[in-house]
Amino acid sequence: MSKRIEVCLTPALIHLYDITESIVVVIDVLRATSSITYGIDNGAEAIIPVAQVEDCLSYANQGFLLAAERNGEVVSGYDFGNSPFSYTKEKVGGKTIVLTTTNGTKALHLARKHAYQVVIGSFLNLDSLCEYLKAQNKNVLLLCAGWKDQFNLEDTLFAGAVVENLRTSFAHFDDSSVAAQDLYALAKNDLRKYLHKSSHSHRLAELNIEEDVQFCLQLNICKSIPVLEGEKLVRLTT
Amino acid sequence: MSKRIEVCLTPALIHLYDITESIVVVIDVLRATSSITYGIDNGAEAIIPVAQVEDCLSYANQGFLLAAERNGEVVSGYDFGNSPFSYTKEKVGGKTIVLTTTNGTKALHLARKHAYQVVIGSFLNLDSLCEYLKAQNKNVLLLCAGWKDQFNLEDTLFAGAVVENLRTSFAHFDDSSVAAQDLYALAKNDLRKYLHKSSHSHRLAELNIEEDVQFCLQLNICKSIPVLEGEKLVRLTT
Repeated sequence: MSKRIEVCLTPALIHLYDITESIVVVIDVLRATSSITYGIDNGAEAIIPVAQVEDCLSYANQGFLLAAERNGEVVSGYDFGNSPFSYTKEKVGGKTIVLTTTNGTKALHLARKHAYQVVIGSFLNLDSLCEYLKAQNKNVLLLCAGWKDQFNLEDTLFAGAVVENLRTSFAHFDDSSVAAQDLYALAKNDLRKYLHKSSHSHRLAELNIEEDVQFCLQLNICKSIPVLEGEKLVRLTT
Repeated sequence: MSKRIEVCLTPALIHLYDITESIVVVIDVLRATSSITYGIDNGAEAIIPVAQVEDCLSYANQGFLLAAERNGEVVSGYDFGNSPFSYTKEKVGGKTIVLTTTNGTKALHLARKHAYQVVIGSFLNLDSLCEYLKAQNKNVLLLCAGWKDQFNLEDTLFAGAVVENLRTSFAHFDDSSVAAQDLYALAKNDLRKYLHKSSHSHRLAELNIEEDVQFCLQLNICKSIPVLEGEKLVRLTT
């Protein structure tokens, strides 16, 4: 098989792609998919992504942790949001977490409808993810969650990191994967510095999540690849 | 006014932007907006963009030239398609052309619904266009026509050229304008070479339009800015 890699720059464009034979990698590096990766790596039994804040509530009183973020902040009354520091071994080991976020869970729900498989990507598990994708006889769609359906730099940079890694193992690349790889090449020596160019950098600064951002830009501190099985994200066993 | 510049990477995302106070620059550099620029610069009285090939026919027998392109080729029975070499002084001087193209006219029709003003951009009129945009007290949306609603490199590079030019005259830039400018900086020394990376380069080669491509990548051989007035593109008088 002559494998294809494509980058979908925002969830609003996913209808353009035939993903029935593709592994879709959902990317929302600041912060949903980084926290999911870290949580699964730290022994969370499962993470259940739900679309609406209200949907989380229907899981109350079942012993689950409830995580809800909107516009970058923890929703009042929930256990936590999507800061990776909430997904430590002590907090999530053995637990199931029900999670809703502004962009990440929306992208997940769009992808699951048609994809062959849905996995989670972040800088934290870059190498493990790429090794897995290389070994499968499937196309890959890198789905950037973006910000409210708009293009964003951080998710595109991660897509570019994956493209760079897979360049010699795949045969076909679309224009957005070429662009993503070139942008990553510009940014890779100092990802944090590059992201200061982002239109979101003011928003990030206002949220006071600099530690989270620094954490999410670390490469390969996790080995796990979260995979969607039914309605749950669990650790992929390869 | 603190002016804003945004890049809409494909027409499928235009609903995300509030363009009521924006000048929208429609970009389809290979080849529609280059040919439109060249035709207007060469004295065409007007170019009427229509959505469907069939719509062109309703203008037959009115003394108009009919131009129709689909998937990069002239539609059989039409005077010409969107090769810039069809838009010379000899062929279009004093004439009105009715034009439909795969991506460019679609983008135009989407933009006209809500924009403050719609103008046409191409490498051929880059400097004139940028001088005009600097002098107006309006926001700017650079609308890349892309390829069948997907991101493409050539239109994004042109958007980046405009962003580079306007960088010091505007205050707010979205993430896609940052990305476009950085990609243009990588490509500008040899645009043609950079575009060989494109997934469309095979398609372009098959169409046997290398001369067209080289022509469309020339900077500043035209002074005119085509502007949409009612249903017609005419030369903007400033």
